[in-house]
Amino acid sequence: MKVTIEVICIGNELLIGKIENTNSGWLAKHITQLGGILTRITVVQDAIQEIAASINESAERKPQFIITTGGLGPTFDDKTLQGLAFALNRKLEINPEALTLVKKRSIEYAKKRGYTTEIDLTPPRVKMATLPEKTAVVNNPVGTAPAVKADVKESILFALPGVPSEMEAIFEESIAPLIRKAAGENIFCETSLFLENIFESKLAPLIDKVMKDNPEVYVKSHPLKSEGKAHLELHLTITAIKKSNPCAKLQKAAKELAELITSNGGIIK
Amino acid sequence: MKVTIEVICIGNELLIGKIENTNSGWLAKHITQLGGILTRITVVQDAIQEIAASINESAERKPQFIITTGGLGPTFDDKTLQGLAFALNRKLEINPEALTLVKKRSIEYAKKRGYTTEIDLTPPRVKMATLPEKTAVVNNPVGTAPAVKADVKESILFALPGVPSEMEAIFEESIAPLIRKAAGENIFCETSLFLENIFESKLAPLIDKVMKDNPEVYVKSHPLKSEGKAHLELHLTITAIKKSNPCAKLQKAAKELAELITSNGGIIK
Repeated sequence: MKVTIEVICIGNELLIGKIENTNSGWLAKHITQLGGILTRITVVQDAIQEIAASINESAERKPQFIITTGGLGPTFDDKTLQGLAFALNRKLEINPEALTLVKKRSIEYAKKRGYTTEIDLTPPRVKMATLPEKTAVVNNPVGTAPAVKADVKESILFALPGVPSEMEAIFEESIAPLIRKAAGENIFCETSLFLENIFESKLAPLIDKVMKDNPEVYVKSHPLKSEGKAHLELHLTITAIKKSNPCAKLQKAAKELAELITSNGGIIK
Repeated sequence: MKVTIEVICIGNELLIGKIENTNSGWLAKHITQLGGILTRITVVQDAIQEIAASINESAERKPQFIITTGGLGPTFDDKTLQGLAFALNRKLEINPEALTLVKKRSIEYAKKRGYTTEIDLTPPRVKMATLPEKTAVVNNPVGTAPAVKADVKESILFALPGVPSEMEAIFEESIAPLIRKAAGENIFCETSLFLENIFESKLAPLIDKVMKDNPEVYVKSHPLKSEGKAHLELHLTITAIKKSNPCAKLQKAAKELAELITSNGGIIK
């Protein structure tokens, strides 16, 4: 069975171009390598209604997992948990397990940074431990704000922080094993052909033929530039059950495509 | 009036992490600088139903403009125009103006690259000129596939190619002037405070206070790392009518925030 996943990135900084959205690309790569299929990425503003709407819209499409990034911090503009509560129509409540984690991490952080401030459970710290009812705390091994796990309709949602090091550590520790397990025997294979001396428009029917002959293989052409002379990368990918030998299928398709290209005057590099 | 815009990026390569989505960040930055508000970015697969669904969902939210990137090329996996036709419930037809442009650009491209091939209007070239009925051709000054303009409910949609140089050139030539005009007197201002020696959680109520005192100003905190010691950037932004003096409002808010931070033991760098 194919494991479908959606990613929702929350943050005005992504929508004003202040911060490059490296999280979505990182997740795309890792989900794919685990045998999962990322079907959609949505980037929304720090606004409760927007966050809630994007979560509900995503759940309507019934991906197996929804991963949100951003908006779990202590400040006013961190609204993911409020958005999730609104989407689920549940109250927010202080989660004792989350509160213990926030306190523990705050003390560790203060020590590491050499701060001498007392660690009080101030309202911003309590905010990070205030989760929608009936959601679960997920350990954040490298930061203060815990991640959150919730069932949203038929999907399992994970809300992760936006700081890349924290997002990545939580993904590796708590989500990757679940995707790997759900993906079961699905594996991802890829290969590339680099070519020149052929128009993309002349190439098109050759790609079409190979994709029709090899329905599980996806071929995408990417124009490249090197030393002023354009050439193309053809990127072939497949995600399929290991015992169906997807990597061999991919190689067969690549071979067929390479032969078609050379017999049409193209040069494989 | 605020000008709202949504961006839809189309391409499996973005969802498998093969290609970094630089287009969305570039558009975010440029839209913001023009006084527009980018409210959502959606990334979808090369699938007609997915493309159509994302366009219709976007139009339901009634942004003034919808910009799609990707999927206009000659190959099988370029499905944006089919998706747009499906969303609009219109037929695809060969557009004579687009066909003339495709032929012209193909000849120019061949000459520039030193190809000696004859330029025939092969099916893949005709495909790039096959648009949904009642849509308009938009000049692509640097590539073969023309862009397309369509009214979708109350929004104006532009379908741009995914190749960054082409996307950027078309945006600058044909879309930026429209956004600038629609944004009217709206301008965007930003400023940053760099600080250390204060916890994000201690900072939170200070930011809250400044955002409440200055409701048009948005403050976002970004953790930074330099020489192993964490510090923070506070990024203050505003988009508002020029005659309301938004940049002065921003400076007032930044001053208030800086004073609150220093009086709470933080250091402004």
